[in-house]
Amino acid sequence: MSETLETLVEQYWNAAVARDWKAFGELLHEQVLYEIPQTLERVRGRAAYVEFNATYPGDWTLEVESIIANERQAVSRVSFEVDGEFETGITFFEFRDGLISRITDYWPVPYAPPMRVSDKVERYEVERH
Amino acid sequence: MSETLETLVEQYWNAAVARDWKAFGELLHEQVLYEIPQTLERVRGRAAYVEFNATYPGDWTLEVESIIANERQAVSRVSFEVDGEFETGITFFEFRDGLISRITDYWPVPYAPPMRVSDKVERYEVERH
Repeated sequence: MSETLETLVEQYWNAAVARDWKAFGELLHEQVLYEIPQTLERVRGRAAYVEFNATYPGDWTLEVESIIANERQAVSRVSFEVDGEFETGITFFEFRDGLISRITDYWPVPYAPPMRVSDKVERYEVERH
Repeated sequence: MSETLETLVEQYWNAAVARDWKAFGELLHEQVLYEIPQTLERVRGRAAYVEFNATYPGDWTLEVESIIANERQAVSRVSFEVDGEFETGITFFEFRDGLISRITDYWPVPYAPPMRVSDKVERYEVERH
């Protein structure tokens, strides 16, 4: 079952990257609820959510970095690229009747490191490939 | 095995909330690697990572909202409260020899919603309890 959910999430991202909105919609429950807690935005229902994605602006693509699924839930981390800029997307999925019924999306953006008490904190650099 | 990893992550957060740094350290691999990709900060090794947490400033606590684990990896979402402010923390865990060997932490903060093409996007409010 957890492999099934992992596969479903893979298919979701593959369909999005391919702009195959028919295949994308077929993975979604009719009552799918999409939320972005950082902006308090919400999209309700399959048709609206397909439209939201199909009209998403910019020349974007993404690579799936990891998917973790158990028997009931899944999470993916993707590297999203839009107009040459990279962002990390973290997406939680819930399921009903073998379809995606809830999607909660997080977009953690860079911020300046706060002052640290511990002197054991180092900085590192990202390698893009 | 996935239940074991879920339990390990539960124990990790319980030990942190209890400030039981001995129990906390016993869950960590000696070579544990902690990273915050948003600030490009890194802490290496059990002793340094325990110190980083033990000296973390502010009157903080947290509630675990969800843990998803498969056979090899886990992710948790916590509601972190420091000095009366709430933040969401999303933490990815990897394991070696039954211990936590890698921790990657994300802190997605609120941001203003971008202009949307689709008119199917609504706003919602958060209820705190």
